[in-house]
Amino acid sequence: MKSIEKLHSANNAGKYICVGLDTDSKKLPNHLASVKKPVVEFNKKIIEATKNSAAAYKLNLAFYESEGIKGLEDLEETLSFIPENILTIADGKRGDIGNTSNLYARSIFDHFKFDAATLNPYMGQDSLEPFLSYSDKFNFILVLTSNPGSEDFQKQKLQSGSFLYQEVIKKIHTWNKNLNCGIVFGATNLAELRENVSLIDELPLLIPGVGAQGGSLEHVTNLLFTAKINSFVINVSRGIIQKSLGENFADAAKNELVTLNKIIIQNSHLKK
Amino acid sequence: MKSIEKLHSANNAGKYICVGLDTDSKKLPNHLASVKKPVVEFNKKIIEATKNSAAAYKLNLAFYESEGIKGLEDLEETLSFIPENILTIADGKRGDIGNTSNLYARSIFDHFKFDAATLNPYMGQDSLEPFLSYSDKFNFILVLTSNPGSEDFQKQKLQSGSFLYQEVIKKIHTWNKNLNCGIVFGATNLAELRENVSLIDELPLLIPGVGAQGGSLEHVTNLLFTAKINSFVINVSRGIIQKSLGENFADAAKNELVTLNKIIIQNSHLKK
Repeated sequence: MKSIEKLHSANNAGKYICVGLDTDSKKLPNHLASVKKPVVEFNKKIIEATKNSAAAYKLNLAFYESEGIKGLEDLEETLSFIPENILTIADGKRGDIGNTSNLYARSIFDHFKFDAATLNPYMGQDSLEPFLSYSDKFNFILVLTSNPGSEDFQKQKLQSGSFLYQEVIKKIHTWNKNLNCGIVFGATNLAELRENVSLIDELPLLIPGVGAQGGSLEHVTNLLFTAKINSFVINVSRGIIQKSLGENFADAAKNELVTLNKIIIQNSHLKK
Repeated sequence: MKSIEKLHSANNAGKYICVGLDTDSKKLPNHLASVKKPVVEFNKKIIEATKNSAAAYKLNLAFYESEGIKGLEDLEETLSFIPENILTIADGKRGDIGNTSNLYARSIFDHFKFDAATLNPYMGQDSLEPFLSYSDKFNFILVLTSNPGSEDFQKQKLQSGSFLYQEVIKKIHTWNKNLNCGIVFGATNLAELRENVSLIDELPLLIPGVGAQGGSLEHVTNLLFTAKINSFVINVSRGIIQKSLGENFADAAKNELVTLNKIIIQNSHLKK
């Protein structure tokens, strides 16, 4: 099953929330301290509780890499719990010269068997090409990120009149020969999202920045449905997986996901 | 010993070549196929043969990560062979939102104990801040890379009249409160390097792109010494470590490094 089909199938079923498994080994429920693999146990329970209503799972690689060898084992085991039909996104924001990028792509797509990756466009087309050449996989390329630093370069105005992030969108359209490119657009940049709906066109969106970072789920889904952008996932990490750090953490995550989905459903009439 | 002192000490001793340990497990001398840890054995021999004339060692993380858990073990063991006084650079081109960037920084600087890291500036200041806050460590931030894709965004002209890569240099100066920032500038962009000598000012340089990628060591050192830029390392990976894939690979690497150093010494009168 192509990665893009997993995304479409989730969206067609009214699922738009990507659960961010940014699992911090230092912020786990106390009662997991005694188990053998606390991160794996935590992720397993979160996945079991959320898999019926999650559109995708995004694993930020930093959270696993920073634990060294144990972290990579946890990453691999976590992926084994995610149902085959749900999109998995490796959030590593990679980008390097061709022969190196090729190794990152092989690691993410062949070794770990992720469905999708996030990529950093600063080094240009040839740095992303090894990822784009996997025609069954999917790539979300950073355009306008959710952090304050997005002002530094992404919002620089070019002589052509476009902002840098808009130039990135234009280039992505020319790179999208395998129809396996999407974009990362932070929910904290709602005005820019509104202004760029036609430039984004049919590129699927991965939207971080809702919750802890300040973006509003209601506003962003209202905008996306009104603009008839139907192919997207909105990532929520801490807001779901750290909703409770008690023994009920999995139920709390599930309930939060249900609540978030209700907000989306209330807006979904707009897409008609 | 601060990372910047290791760089200065190498440069003061006339050492400018950074040996890139981009060790590809599929391109090793045949006779290593039978040893237990071929990558570790290869790296160990290369380090033993080059440590007296190398200015630094750069390990591109992709080459190790792509081998999974075994790769991380190889990375850790390789680092143990590098003498304490030689600069080690983790080439991962990281950059992510603050709490995530913090995990990458901890992994590179605290866990693996690298002296320096390469960073991608696309997400702006707060994405790099966790790295910059390690005042004893050093950070080489991507400015103008050696690959063809550097045309796509880095060489876009801004309304201010600067190119994007020049805006990155300007921002780096404002971020350099701990005097632990340097820049990555590809040897394939020699004209731009010449034009930006005064903008770069005293920021140390990491220069990739010599050899396999087409940059000329002679031209780049001639330019740098003439411009009185004295704090830099020029990375050579494949040109040194894959000089021979026979049993004599370590000697071949050593001889190549000596040859490269001779080219540099021939130009070094220019820095007077």
